[in-house]
Amino acid sequence: MKRIKLIVAYDGTNYSGWQVQPNGETIEGVLNRTLSGLLHEEIKVTGASRTDAGVHSLGNVAVFDTDTRIPPEKIAYALNPFLPDDIVVQDSCEVSGDFHPRHCDSRKTYEYKILNRTFPLPTRRLDTYFLYGKLDVERMQAAGDYLVGIHDFKSFCSANTAVETTVRRIYDLQVERQGEVITIRVTGSGFLYNMVRIIAGTLIQAGRGELEPEEMREILEARDRKAAGPTAPAHGLTMTGIDFL
Amino acid sequence: MKRIKLIVAYDGTNYSGWQVQPNGETIEGVLNRTLSGLLHEEIKVTGASRTDAGVHSLGNVAVFDTDTRIPPEKIAYALNPFLPDDIVVQDSCEVSGDFHPRHCDSRKTYEYKILNRTFPLPTRRLDTYFLYGKLDVERMQAAGDYLVGIHDFKSFCSANTAVETTVRRIYDLQVERQGEVITIRVTGSGFLYNMVRIIAGTLIQAGRGELEPEEMREILEARDRKAAGPTAPAHGLTMTGIDFL
Repeated sequence: MKRIKLIVAYDGTNYSGWQVQPNGETIEGVLNRTLSGLLHEEIKVTGASRTDAGVHSLGNVAVFDTDTRIPPEKIAYALNPFLPDDIVVQDSCEVSGDFHPRHCDSRKTYEYKILNRTFPLPTRRLDTYFLYGKLDVERMQAAGDYLVGIHDFKSFCSANTAVETTVRRIYDLQVERQGEVITIRVTGSGFLYNMVRIIAGTLIQAGRGELEPEEMREILEARDRKAAGPTAPAHGLTMTGIDFL
Repeated sequence: MKRIKLIVAYDGTNYSGWQVQPNGETIEGVLNRTLSGLLHEEIKVTGASRTDAGVHSLGNVAVFDTDTRIPPEKIAYALNPFLPDDIVVQDSCEVSGDFHPRHCDSRKTYEYKILNRTFPLPTRRLDTYFLYGKLDVERMQAAGDYLVGIHDFKSFCSANTAVETTVRRIYDLQVERQGEVITIRVTGSGFLYNMVRIIAGTLIQAGRGELEPEEMREILEARDRKAAGPTAPAHGLTMTGIDFL
């Protein structure tokens, strides 16, 4: 028996998120079914980030145990031909039997992409959130700077989630414009439910001038979801990768 | 009666190309139907580039005549809410009554995008052609340089097309790598059927070392489709814009 780690990229458009649901196809469901068929064992993967419906990934991590004799690094090559085009395993390797992708310390990076121009672009409709009107990237960065560090992010967590603590650490938050695309890149120790999308929705308010960057301090202190901005749509969000520390 | 010019962007994935077909949905068909409904007149658009099934556009041009009282520059705003997400008009304006988008001298630009890495990326599967293995961009550029200028491009034209002449002018051809994406950008006076895709397929052979750049001269001189490389897949191709001279 060995434990295998997969790096999984997907376009989340056609899925009900990562985690197996009673209704709707999920990334986890497709991986379980496809791996079980390939390896002739019942496989259940454990994901690092249980991304929401419509959220994309370049480098989510899934782990599973197997008795297969396929060399660990060949599993990606063996598996991909049986996966749909919108899910592609980027790497496979063996990890120690006690490695758990959610119980390890890690740095996760997400990117929220805004397409900021007069009309939507059909070729970017699946991975960017279209927003017309002036967005001041410097103000967005100034607002985002207040979130870096260790904070109670209760205001940036969707209601009715039962977690032990809403304290998280953001290592880095960068807001960049490249042409018509504004990217909010956040690296953190972990994220609460909808946290990156609520950060994006709040930074958009700052970028539009509806919010002063300094108000971020009060929003954090409020520890109340209603203090922060709206939850930006899922399809602008991509999980770009995880570093295990 | 006035003549209106539209700049039309689309993701060609779900269409049987630009031109109305007996079977299958087309960009032209959607525009005709949606404009006719909006303007309460029977509208038939004329396109500048009749792109193939699966080819995308950032700036194709469509022209039509109408009696509408909607101001020309407002037509884009009025039309977009009735179009599917994968077709978005970027601009509308009035042009003179003798303007015809295919009979005017113009410079058209196409980009062919190759995703060059070990595994496909789900988020780029619709607008890039995935190709594993070493591609030498300098060799591709050196091969492409032979195509710039006025040439008989018969070798780069799919068989059984009846055109008066297969002589075309390429103003510029650039091959660039940005990270894992190689872009072949071609600007020309007009393009024969499948011409950009055959150029891409041939430059890929040069990039792989299967063809010496100098052989491009012989391929042009052969005036025979069989002399050139394969037709690269449609989904890597995007029409980026047209300048009318």
